[in-house]
Amino acid sequence: MTLPTRSAAAASSNENLASSNEYLAGDTGRAGIEDRGEAPDADGLAAGPVRVDLLFEPSGRRVRVPAGVTLFDAASWNGIAIDSTCGGHGTCKKCKVRMLDAAAAPSALDIRAFSAEEIRDGWRLACRAQAAGDARVEVPPLVTRPKAATVGVGRQVILRPAVQKRYLELAEPSLADQRSDLERVLAALDDLELRADLHAVRSVGRALRAADYHVTAVIVDDVLIDVEPGDTSGRLFGIAFDLGTTTVVATLLDLSTATPVAVASALNRQQPFGADVITRISAAMMDPDTLGRLTALAQETLADLAAEVCAAGEVDPAEVYEVALAGNATMTHIVLGIDPEPLGVAPFILATRLLPEALAADLGVAAHPRARAVIFPPFGAYVGGDITAGLLASGMDRDSRTRLFVDIGTNCEIVLGNRDWLLATAAPAGPAFEGAAIRCGMRAADGAIEVVTMTPDSLELQVIGDAEPVGLCGSGLVDAVTGLVRLGLLDSSGRLVSEEQAASLAPGLAGRLTRLGAERVFVLHWLGAAGDVSRSVYLSQRDVRELQFAKAAIATGWHILLEEAGLRPADIQQVLLAGSFGSYLSPANAIRLGLVPEIPVLRVVSAGNVAGEGAKMALLSVRERAGGLALLEEVRYVELSDRADFNDRFIDQLAFPG
Amino acid sequence: MTLPTRSAAAASSNENLASSNEYLAGDTGRAGIEDRGEAPDADGLAAGPVRVDLLFEPSGRRVRVPAGVTLFDAASWNGIAIDSTCGGHGTCKKCKVRMLDAAAAPSALDIRAFSAEEIRDGWRLACRAQAAGDARVEVPPLVTRPKAATVGVGRQVILRPAVQKRYLELAEPSLADQRSDLERVLAALDDLELRADLHAVRSVGRALRAADYHVTAVIVDDVLIDVEPGDTSGRLFGIAFDLGTTTVVATLLDLSTATPVAVASALNRQQPFGADVITRISAAMMDPDTLGRLTALAQETLADLAAEVCAAGEVDPAEVYEVALAGNATMTHIVLGIDPEPLGVAPFILATRLLPEALAADLGVAAHPRARAVIFPPFGAYVGGDITAGLLASGMDRDSRTRLFVDIGTNCEIVLGNRDWLLATAAPAGPAFEGAAIRCGMRAADGAIEVVTMTPDSLELQVIGDAEPVGLCGSGLVDAVTGLVRLGLLDSSGRLVSEEQAASLAPGLAGRLTRLGAERVFVLHWLGAAGDVSRSVYLSQRDVRELQFAKAAIATGWHILLEEAGLRPADIQQVLLAGSFGSYLSPANAIRLGLVPEIPVLRVVSAGNVAGEGAKMALLSVRERAGGLALLEEVRYVELSDRADFNDRFIDQLAFPG
Repeated sequence: MTLPTRSAAAASSNENLASSNEYLAGDTGRAGIEDRGEAPDADGLAAGPVRVDLLFEPSGRRVRVPAGVTLFDAASWNGIAIDSTCGGHGTCKKCKVRMLDAAAAPSALDIRAFSAEEIRDGWRLACRAQAAGDARVEVPPLVTRPKAATVGVGRQVILRPAVQKRYLELAEPSLADQRSDLERVLAALDDLELRADLHAVRSVGRALRAADYHVTAVIVDDVLIDVEPGDTSGRLFGIAFDLGTTTVVATLLDLSTATPVAVASALNRQQPFGADVITRISAAMMDPDTLGRLTALAQETLADLAAEVCAAGEVDPAEVYEVALAGNATMTHIVLGIDPEPLGVAPFILATRLLPEALAADLGVAAHPRARAVIFPPFGAYVGGDITAGLLASGMDRDSRTRLFVDIGTNCEIVLGNRDWLLATAAPAGPAFEGAAIRCGMRAADGAIEVVTMTPDSLELQVIGDAEPVGLCGSGLVDAVTGLVRLGLLDSSGRLVSEEQAASLAPGLAGRLTRLGAERVFVLHWLGAAGDVSRSVYLSQRDVRELQFAKAAIATGWHILLEEAGLRPADIQQVLLAGSFGSYLSPANAIRLGLVPEIPVLRVVSAGNVAGEGAKMALLSVRERAGGLALLEEVRYVELSDRADFNDRFIDQLAFPG
Repeated sequence: MTLPTRSAAAASSNENLASSNEYLAGDTGRAGIEDRGEAPDADGLAAGPVRVDLLFEPSGRRVRVPAGVTLFDAASWNGIAIDSTCGGHGTCKKCKVRMLDAAAAPSALDIRAFSAEEIRDGWRLACRAQAAGDARVEVPPLVTRPKAATVGVGRQVILRPAVQKRYLELAEPSLADQRSDLERVLAALDDLELRADLHAVRSVGRALRAADYHVTAVIVDDVLIDVEPGDTSGRLFGIAFDLGTTTVVATLLDLSTATPVAVASALNRQQPFGADVITRISAAMMDPDTLGRLTALAQETLADLAAEVCAAGEVDPAEVYEVALAGNATMTHIVLGIDPEPLGVAPFILATRLLPEALAADLGVAAHPRARAVIFPPFGAYVGGDITAGLLASGMDRDSRTRLFVDIGTNCEIVLGNRDWLLATAAPAGPAFEGAAIRCGMRAADGAIEVVTMTPDSLELQVIGDAEPVGLCGSGLVDAVTGLVRLGLLDSSGRLVSEEQAASLAPGLAGRLTRLGAERVFVLHWLGAAGDVSRSVYLSQRDVRELQFAKAAIATGWHILLEEAGLRPADIQQVLLAGSFGSYLSPANAIRLGLVPEIPVLRVVSAGNVAGEGAKMALLSVRERAGGLALLEEVRYVELSDRADFNDRFIDQLAFPG
């Protein structure tokens, strides 16, 4: 997340900046969807901000929030719906509440929205009234539904983007009113405390005179970025990017309705420089010009996707006022033109965790010229912004349950914890799960075997794209190995049993257990004549070893985190399998392989592309964005590479579970 | 001045931000070089910040300052010298003072600079200790002289640029210390509260590893803009630009010593589009592409001058970390690419008074890629940033004397006031003083008559460049007209007397009073044969009328300001003639013509190029820069164009003083 988002929590309610920052520092991710019952001070933030109690009527819900937050935020963070169509930006004037005991001082907007009598009676706009002390607040029945979207792992996000538009009908200047064009516009936005971007200063004069002083102000956080002629207030868009090492996904979001307009994905154009981050870092280390080329290729990938989703959604790129990007640390460094070399060699150092203010243009994306780029911050060299986004999307820091988040890839990121504490680490799983280093491995593309179902007598394959199988992707690999383990054709040490044993254990499959040269293999599909192993899709003994190494690295990672937390595997109440591989992997097989702890299978959940979901959440809600930033302070990173006991523990994890 | 300078007052002492902003709001230009005697609250800022009394020992000087300012600032603003070589940036640790009664809490820097016993004894670094309440402060005798420069109209500016460099020797990272590169650098700058620019994030990793973790941090205000390998702390430069309609001047300043390194000037390349701002605005109105061309030409002028001064000073443009620009409103709009059209037509509206944050790159100037541009803000369409800079340089808002500031040009800016109040206006003088609209007029260039000395019997000319006279520039025009008035050859209504009268009044000159066609002329120099008027440099009756119109417009302007202030001409204690024309004009002639009030001639002072001086001050001192910004709030603009009595008053001023 870029630095400007530190103040994003304040969004349009800039008068709350100080209190919002307090909130950020200690509490952002905490108060929230789950009712805590006890006072939230229990999280140990003794030195944190002053809290106040609010009692919402008629629901009778009592919530405890940092002093200074608005009633609107206090309510929406706690799932109490207050009328609003603007999401707390002060434009719709629908969030009317009544402060029953001590009412806050009326704001400039209150004076416009209410009669003097109503103000005396305690009526206030919830988005402007701050919770200065304990208070009782009456919330009228809903007339409109606040705009919201379900994103991430069942997260209900109330729309409150950093981008807002305000349509203004202004008086023309005269010799008696010679205020500058910019001052004229800002005076009509006096509930905000804005600074203007040079772009807005360049456009304001022409916009005012082109449309009889009827214009739309475009605001991102506390910056006026543009003034557009006429009423364009219904047109505001953002693009969420999931910048993967392999695949890049772009989602165009309508920020006035919280709806996705178009989605597109493409391979990362850096592919020719290697399949994983280490080979790309190495390429940049070998040749000083390569960094520039890698940066350009990543930016071109984003730019083409942005153009594609805008075309599909019939959106002018200049109507895209903000983009968000979640990627691993290496991809994030490279796309910003930051040398990734220190990420690739011990002691694995990031250029920065807190990314500075950046523009969509800094990512090479054609959008509004002053469109912001919100970039998710990494925790460490191998727990990147994609994981920050994933944790945000899965609500790891807001759930009372102790959960294990596992994003399986060449580098496997593992996070353990609940709303009170979070531990993260990265395990070097190697490329097995991405089909690399596997003899017949391939990416999850057309022709890849993705599901393998075995009985002692039969074997069925499911192939991506309904094509002739040509290789084995990660999920197919896991299926094949777990199938062989289940049938006893692989022993728990990972050795393929003898052909005699196989014939008795699984007579229908025994013919598939054979040799290619000196190596033992299990044939999944004959491409040519049966018996011609060289023309088949097979699993080799060495492939099994690769998978064992990968799963042992991952299991070692979460075992060490459990130990750091003083917990046992059975204490884990849910496992979230993140990333594209996670969504293909069968939970039962993940348990069988020992990739995840042995807990009831229904507690192992595929969370999908949580990085992309987190990026969408950041665009839809400054509140969620601030929560993502706060994660940096909430997660403790556990480095595995300097642990003397890592290798012993790794060997302990090589076997398949009994 | 750009918006970032609002926070510039805080500079490196970011902990003072809130109090510094208070200072800016009400007091910046006020406390200062002049001792007020009485409490400064007398300026009517009853709602301003809390003030505290400080007694400096052994001098016994008592000063009253807003609570929260540092002792260093409080002293230097009041002319009390405290040892310092860094100008209050917290790097030199020389500004040691002792708080005699209640000492401020020690800062992080105090703990490094003093022993525990010294801290107990009240020793503090003055640049970090805040004046929270009334206090007595012991200032040791000076060991070093604080770096200072005399700029502007005798203004002594203590060096405190927004740009600072810090040389850091950092520990290498390890698995036990995996802080990101940026966090490592920022931790060593923990007395500042910095945010990092993307450029710094891009450079930090390579800089650290290129120089064994010995690097120099480059900071502008509260932004880390770069990290350079090794110790470059002695190399920091800025360029001050005076962007005139006609002439552009660039001064390269060494910001570590407050010394000018190189100066260059050039004609504004926009010249082909017209001599004055109105013709350039008209050009932009006629053809929509012209604005872009005018912007490019202004930027090219600045860029070439920047390259020239850098070459002359042997400075790498990347060592220029800040530039400042003072120009009239039209030039400022155009160079930033802002449409100037609304400046040129009633009701004369600026795009903005407060210019947004800009970079040197936004001005087309090659410097450090993140070099800031400090742009002086205009008061109105015809009282531009050049006047803001000029008022700063001449200390108009800090002097107890009531002074009249007159910048003579096609548009004449007039400011009247003292440290308690300031009134400004603009008078449409027309181009006479720039030699345009005068038959034999020319700019002040080689061959221009700049001084004319007349007696009844003789006439002597002084010519620029020691050349044959080919025309008459503004000062020569004024000399010629005042000479003729003095000799009686021009009557007080501005009519050339008859040839008979001339022969009796000035027998030696009578032959010069003749005709060209129907028009009466006075020949200053025969280019061909005596008597061939068509080949001579002459002054025509119409030229005299042009000059009368110009001087009447100006005199009307300051008469109206005097009336607004309830003062008479004799109340003016000093007249400052600003701008290049002002420095050529003889004070005696200015009085004789009625251009300025009839006051003792020694009180009329040529102030020189005060706009350029103001730009230099802004680079040398964030304190002075903040003072320039504060002027916007302190000056009241008086619009002449809607005054019903303007024409009557104008006619009253046409005559030459008795």
